[in-house]
Amino acid sequence: MPEPAKMTTRFAAIADRLKFNEQGLIPAIAQQHDSGEVLMMAWMNRDAVIETLGTGRVCYFSRSRNKLWRKGESSGQEQHLVDFRYDCDQDTILVQVDQKGVACHTGRRNCFYFAARDGVETIISEPEISVEDLYGDKK
Amino acid sequence: MPEPAKMTTRFAAIADRLKFNEQGLIPAIAQQHDSGEVLMMAWMNRDAVIETLGTGRVCYFSRSRNKLWRKGESSGQEQHLVDFRYDCDQDTILVQVDQKGVACHTGRRNCFYFAARDGVETIISEPEISVEDLYGDKK
Repeated sequence: MPEPAKMTTRFAAIADRLKFNEQGLIPAIAQQHDSGEVLMMAWMNRDAVIETLGTGRVCYFSRSRNKLWRKGESSGQEQHLVDFRYDCDQDTILVQVDQKGVACHTGRRNCFYFAARDGVETIISEPEISVEDLYGDKK
Repeated sequence: MPEPAKMTTRFAAIADRLKFNEQGLIPAIAQQHDSGEVLMMAWMNRDAVIETLGTGRVCYFSRSRNKLWRKGESSGQEQHLVDFRYDCDQDTILVQVDQKGVACHTGRRNCFYFAARDGVETIISEPEISVEDLYGDKK
């Protein structure tokens, strides 16, 4: 690996390739690298992209809290970066990750637990861990 | 299956559950249902959601053309709906699909062909079909 300063320059160059929206954000899909399970979708800003590439731990931008959101910082359910990809239009990121524990704040492995079956909303997975166990008093 | 009018009411109720942004759009991730490959991310409006559920063929909203975009209508590379899911916040859709041919307008199977490897942009897949063969004179 090149020296740290050079890597930082490279990560900035990757961020320069991406198209952020008018709020300075880009959608990022997180996928479990080995099973292919789509875990969640969240948003990154430029700083989150550079931090994710630099640390190997996925960092988003929380729109509700208006600050960087290091996935797992409250819950311990970290996402370790396996591959950082982006699409033909450079306006969507796909992070392939190794998800520690569960990705969803409800305690489910992934966030996509509602399905329309015969036109009726159906819950297709259950929490693997309680919200209390996930966040304790930290929420 | 209930009668068509009842199904339309149901699909509208699913659309009512979703949170569209200020432009009336919601991101939709398309995933190949059996392999788990993430194919693309695009946007749907309310009409696109209802059409997708009603026809079983995935329909997006094209922001550049400002109209419904029935995936494959120009290229023939249709997406057949296998499961329609959405997330805990009801603000992202995951459509599991059977993709006919390729999903990407460049002729690649999926759109996520750029990867940051050692901080350097790397192209990780090649087109399976030429743009000319995909669109002919229709583009």
